Amino acid sequence: MERIYIKDLKDHAGEEVVIKGFVDTLRDQNKIVFIILRDITGKIQNVVLKDCEDFDLAKDLTEESVIEIKGLVKEEKQAPGGFEIETKKIVLLSSAAPELPIPVNTRKGGEETNITSRLDYRFIDLRKPEKANIFKAWTAFERGMRNYFEKNNFIQVYTPSFMNTSSETGAEVFEVSYFERKAYLAQSPQFYKQMAIASGLEKVFISGPVFRAEESFTTRHMTEFTGWDFEIGFINDHHDLMKSEEEMIKTGFEKIKEDLPELDIEIPQIPFPKITIKEAKEKLEAAGVKGEKEHDLSPEEERRICEIIKTETGNDFVFITDYDISIRPFYHMRHENNPQLTKSADLLYKGIEITTLAQREHRPEILEKQAVEKKMDLNLLSKYLEFFKYGCPPHGGGGIGPSRLFMKMFGYDNVREVTFLPRDVNRLEP
Amino acid sequence: MERIYIKDLKDHAGEEVVIKGFVDTLRDQNKIVFIILRDITGKIQNVVLKDCEDFDLAKDLTEESVIEIKGLVKEEKQAPGGFEIETKKIVLLSSAAPELPIPVNTRKGGEETNITSRLDYRFIDLRKPEKANIFKAWTAFERGMRNYFEKNNFIQVYTPSFMNTSSETGAEVFEVSYFERKAYLAQSPQFYKQMAIASGLEKVFISGPVFRAEESFTTRHMTEFTGWDFEIGFINDHHDLMKSEEEMIKTGFEKIKEDLPELDIEIPQIPFPKITIKEAKEKLEAAGVKGEKEHDLSPEEERRICEIIKTETGNDFVFITDYDISIRPFYHMRHENNPQLTKSADLLYKGIEITTLAQREHRPEILEKQAVEKKMDLNLLSKYLEFFKYGCPPHGGGGIGPSRLFMKMFGYDNVREVTFLPRDVNRLEP
Repeated sequence: MERIYIKDLKDHAGEEVVIKGFVDTLRDQNKIVFIILRDITGKIQNVVLKDCEDFDLAKDLTEESVIEIKGLVKEEKQAPGGFEIETKKIVLLSSAAPELPIPVNTRKGGEETNITSRLDYRFIDLRKPEKANIFKAWTAFERGMRNYFEKNNFIQVYTPSFMNTSSETGAEVFEVSYFERKAYLAQSPQFYKQMAIASGLEKVFISGPVFRAEESFTTRHMTEFTGWDFEIGFINDHHDLMKSEEEMIKTGFEKIKEDLPELDIEIPQIPFPKITIKEAKEKLEAAGVKGEKEHDLSPEEERRICEIIKTETGNDFVFITDYDISIRPFYHMRHENNPQLTKSADLLYKGIEITTLAQREHRPEILEKQAVEKKMDLNLLSKYLEFFKYGCPPHGGGGIGPSRLFMKMFGYDNVREVTFLPRDVNRLEP
Repeated sequence: MERIYIKDLKDHAGEEVVIKGFVDTLRDQNKIVFIILRDITGKIQNVVLKDCEDFDLAKDLTEESVIEIKGLVKEEKQAPGGFEIETKKIVLLSSAAPELPIPVNTRKGGEETNITSRLDYRFIDLRKPEKANIFKAWTAFERGMRNYFEKNNFIQVYTPSFMNTSSETGAEVFEVSYFERKAYLAQSPQFYKQMAIASGLEKVFISGPVFRAEESFTTRHMTEFTGWDFEIGFINDHHDLMKSEEEMIKTGFEKIKEDLPELDIEIPQIPFPKITIKEAKEKLEAAGVKGEKEHDLSPEEERRICEIIKTETGNDFVFITDYDISIRPFYHMRHENNPQLTKSADLLYKGIEITTLAQREHRPEILEKQAVEKKMDLNLLSKYLEFFKYGCPPHGGGGIGPSRLFMKMFGYDNVREVTFLPRDVNRLEP
């Protein structure tokens, strides 16, 4: 007999069905046992009467055990959802120890357990339906983005994690024992994306891990996290990149709406508001917010400028553009009419930066000049500089940090909450 | 003026258009210059006459430079493809050095350059249209698989690369300096996939890098490669996994056919042939092929059994099932009626193994017993064993190695040929 998902039981009223899942709640009323069964699609109440052949088994069950139930679907106004199962047979598939290290079912509403314990037992924490929703939404959002990539002829590439040198900066890179030598873990696939452009692939996207050896203990830093990166050839400037990014983000939201209507997600309006960093600073000053850096936004300023833009436009997103060269890497292209400014932007969402994008300088002589200005070691850059010497289309790109996006979308205050198995300075398990 | 892709020029006959791309070939006939321009969609001949304002620029061009051409699309029976462009204007976007380290255009047909040099200059090697096709096909295939995952309610998870212990075996694992301690790079996301099942996510898929510190120098081993992994809860046995895998592979092939009809790819018939390892050995013996191991196939035996099955059934795929426990890991579930055999299978494609799948043992007491039998250190396994103790659905899964799949699909003899930027014992660049 084919297993039926709990969400589909309403289509099977009066039928005998097989359902499978976790024992969410048990209520033993002596002559009757109520089992709330939970699968990935929902919960259903199962009634086990004394004349059921597996009544004793039902009495001995533990919460979070995994069982199969055969029974009759009945309309029952009193039951949550309007249906219940009259249980005919129970098969115990996996027995849970009577004491759980953390609770799944937080009966009083709100989470009772601190985040450290919950992450220690992430495989129990994630059984809460609202947690599964995070990964359903993540999956749907990525599908939407990939629909955008498909429609616009992007090619997916997988870029290596292993690098020969410690990237552009040398700092904050993990070192790996690599046979008789050392390798380093990529902080970003950016140089590889650019190589894809030099390879003539024109438009590429990447989804994969990036690694940061930062000794940061904040709620928005992890040592390993997923990056969604894109790079586009033959662009005019960073405005083309912003246009692409807002479209891919919108298709992501649309797909969540389509696949998970119950989440009632709001689809952002595009185009997103765009203001220069200079304008952002002026708005912040007018609002009485003073940052520490002349050309950059502090986390507090990011929060406040998003509030201001939300009030002005209703949009949760805002692009801050045209950052000063002093706070941007050497490879960002500069404005012809104002070489102090880069053709770059950050995308902020609900108070936090989720993207940095820029047109890259693809002219080797200018790139080299800018590297020297930034006091980079040209020897370390020689391989990077080389792939502009044999023809390279003008190009640019950016990366989206999905954990920050979903943290804000779901109203959490820690990126770990939306990461399947987070890794940070202190955490390498489970 | 919007840029037109070369493949779409046939729809613009008689119009003035802008095209962009690499200078594929230059032919200077004194009073006329022919430029074959190449973009990601094709090639087109551009004629530059003496009265063109950029005639001198055309004469000075180098092959592989990146240019923009404005010109008139004309039908021309003599030109390759039946069209050519009468060039009005040329903009030089990026100038290529006159001497390329490796040729893009192998005029005589066949590749002139050895694989090491080609991989050293992968960003030039990949400009050959037949190489770009590999990554277009890879992208299309993954889209098809994801369509299968979407239709069947799989959730995507991103699993960490960083691990606390050196995995189940301790061998062949890369060690990372992780602040004051050591971390290890995951050889496989398998334990994490199983954790997703214990988390109640029911069906998950993963696409990401896996790392093997093997000192192997063969044509099918790399130190880092992409893995496509899936794990399914509430299965009956490994036959459910084989059914899912053949369907996801078929949808992958179908999507290549749809997106890239010009590749003329053959869609495999499902169900794939399935034979036990015992039957495979009998067939091989009947064909006079003798392997070294009683319960496993050598690379030569893999090749030969695929030939035999291809002859018998016409199929390039074959599942070899029910391997002996001696050559399978402790966590493979065993047949109730024959505990010497595991509920496992390998999928072979055109002579090479591309998947190992199995139902996992989810009952902690049996799992522990099997681990002891295999002389595993239970202390190292304690975290793994723990997540079966609080309820875990019966489950199983497998992983596909796309580089092996595409190597065979495209008729290459080295996985590096179908990997964007391969990494092996000797190679950490570019």
